[in-house]
Amino acid sequence: MAATDPQRIALIGLGTIGMSMAALHLSRENTIVDVFDTRPDIKEYLLQTLPNFLANNNPNSDQSPTVNGLIASGRLHIHATLDSACASATIIQEQGPENLAFKQSIWAQVESTAPATAHFWTSTSGIAASAQQADMADKTRLLVVHPFNPPHIMPLLEIVPSPSTAPERVEFAREYFSLPPGESRHRPVVIRKEIPGFVGNRLAFALLREACYLVQEDVVSVKDLDTILMASLGPRWAGNGVFESYQQGGGEGGIKAFLEKLGGTMQEVWGGLGDVNVLGSEKTEWKRRVIQQTDEAYGTLTKEGVWEKEERLKDFIRAQERRYGGEK
Amino acid sequence: MAATDPQRIALIGLGTIGMSMAALHLSRENTIVDVFDTRPDIKEYLLQTLPNFLANNNPNSDQSPTVNGLIASGRLHIHATLDSACASATIIQEQGPENLAFKQSIWAQVESTAPATAHFWTSTSGIAASAQQADMADKTRLLVVHPFNPPHIMPLLEIVPSPSTAPERVEFAREYFSLPPGESRHRPVVIRKEIPGFVGNRLAFALLREACYLVQEDVVSVKDLDTILMASLGPRWAGNGVFESYQQGGGEGGIKAFLEKLGGTMQEVWGGLGDVNVLGSEKTEWKRRVIQQTDEAYGTLTKEGVWEKEERLKDFIRAQERRYGGEK
Repeated sequence: MAATDPQRIALIGLGTIGMSMAALHLSRENTIVDVFDTRPDIKEYLLQTLPNFLANNNPNSDQSPTVNGLIASGRLHIHATLDSACASATIIQEQGPENLAFKQSIWAQVESTAPATAHFWTSTSGIAASAQQADMADKTRLLVVHPFNPPHIMPLLEIVPSPSTAPERVEFAREYFSLPPGESRHRPVVIRKEIPGFVGNRLAFALLREACYLVQEDVVSVKDLDTILMASLGPRWAGNGVFESYQQGGGEGGIKAFLEKLGGTMQEVWGGLGDVNVLGSEKTEWKRRVIQQTDEAYGTLTKEGVWEKEERLKDFIRAQERRYGGEK
Repeated sequence: MAATDPQRIALIGLGTIGMSMAALHLSRENTIVDVFDTRPDIKEYLLQTLPNFLANNNPNSDQSPTVNGLIASGRLHIHATLDSACASATIIQEQGPENLAFKQSIWAQVESTAPATAHFWTSTSGIAASAQQADMADKTRLLVVHPFNPPHIMPLLEIVPSPSTAPERVEFAREYFSLPPGESRHRPVVIRKEIPGFVGNRLAFALLREACYLVQEDVVSVKDLDTILMASLGPRWAGNGVFESYQQGGGEGGIKAFLEKLGGTMQEVWGGLGDVNVLGSEKTEWKRRVIQQTDEAYGTLTKEGVWEKEERLKDFIRAQERRYGGEK
């Protein structure tokens, strides 16, 4: 079965990421979505929550499909058991708790009940496919599809196979999220090796660690550090990646010239990067200070605030795709 | 003299940053700009280059001032000597070579010739004010104003005083770049302590180091890493800083809940971050691979390419300021 064929996706676990993923899949033509979650009020919860995500699928339209409409037309099914949700699936996607034992047990159960050709995707941010598949008989079917929040808006999906995952399974996932060709809002990227945090979170956490250190050392406040990021690196990296930025920064000599010109400062910074921990009791002095300043600066984000941030995120992503019609 | 008063800015060094800074200052009302550069063809160079930067000052207008017009109206003066450029300045801003001996010598000379009240700003990315002022008699006047490329578009200016810089000098610089109140395109941030790379480049280089390591280990290609950044962290950090993002990511529990939930993965990532160097001969295997892949992916950016990237950058910055009129 090709990724362009109609797909039937079983979603296991309907938290915030699951709900956003449901909206993502439902925004495509030729999909049927089967959902299973252990919460008893799943239907009421879907009716209440999913419309917020579906609305984002049609930025230029007030006509979002309703949950009842999707159910009536057979595009959305709510299931009482895992087996029933997986029975006709071509893709089974899991976004349950980040717990190795849970994931190993779910995949063994899914394997025993799902159609033999179905693709198995886990939305984990931290548990590699090779660990999750320990109790599976066939280890070629499972791979990580790691989304960034919120997945129905954020373009990135990190596709991370285990060493045992079949290449055609990897290609199927990459192709599915690239559809329709040239028009997909999503940008799947295949990661070549399993590594903790994959790539996006490793980059984010590397920057975060230094940010926490700089707040701990009182070089800058939480609020000012965020301003610095929004007023420079954020918009720069929204338009160029880090390597392309420095290729440009080096002028005609490219990144090689940049590394030569800034190498002294860069080595001094690399040699003195902050050494702090998030777990344990040592080198965690930053936590109290960072949490307190972050709470003071932002409090709890309101529903309106989150909505405005999602609208702005969509504007950035639209701006990324804009063409400017040649030189001024 | 208040930052709101008319200012006369002497710019020492007219490379790319200096040219962009000239456009920044000339875009404001009530400024006169005096330039000095050692290149013999400085007038031809200004006539040829400055218009590209001035055009960016008026995104909604085709009517950019011409260089000859600015000279004729007395808003722009080209000087043959440093002393003449500084003679009537209220602000002297230096963007010469990143060389400590050069900067120490320039500031000693400037101090001996400039009006006694003039403010001294250095656009260095790597040499602290406390090091630059070694040969000055009065160490209260100099501070770093570190811009991000290109400064006439990029909002951030890092203001980094030395321990000897007078607080009113710091406040003057902050206020100058905040004008007009509520309308300035720029966002000056005061850094509380001198530290190599200041804040913006420390954060950028922390992320870059991990990026280089991941390319070295063949986890991901240069091009795919850039795609990952543009499809997730770039637009996220253009809309929120890193702390606000994780405050939101933690839901009602804020960043504290986020650190608890993701702490295991985060500590694993922090403990295994790549250890690579840019100088010396050890741990520099990444360089050949990164330079080669970056050259292959991007080549030399064309003039059209740079122009399009600057237009897109302006769109991101405009989108940051947009208001969305409350909840949907």
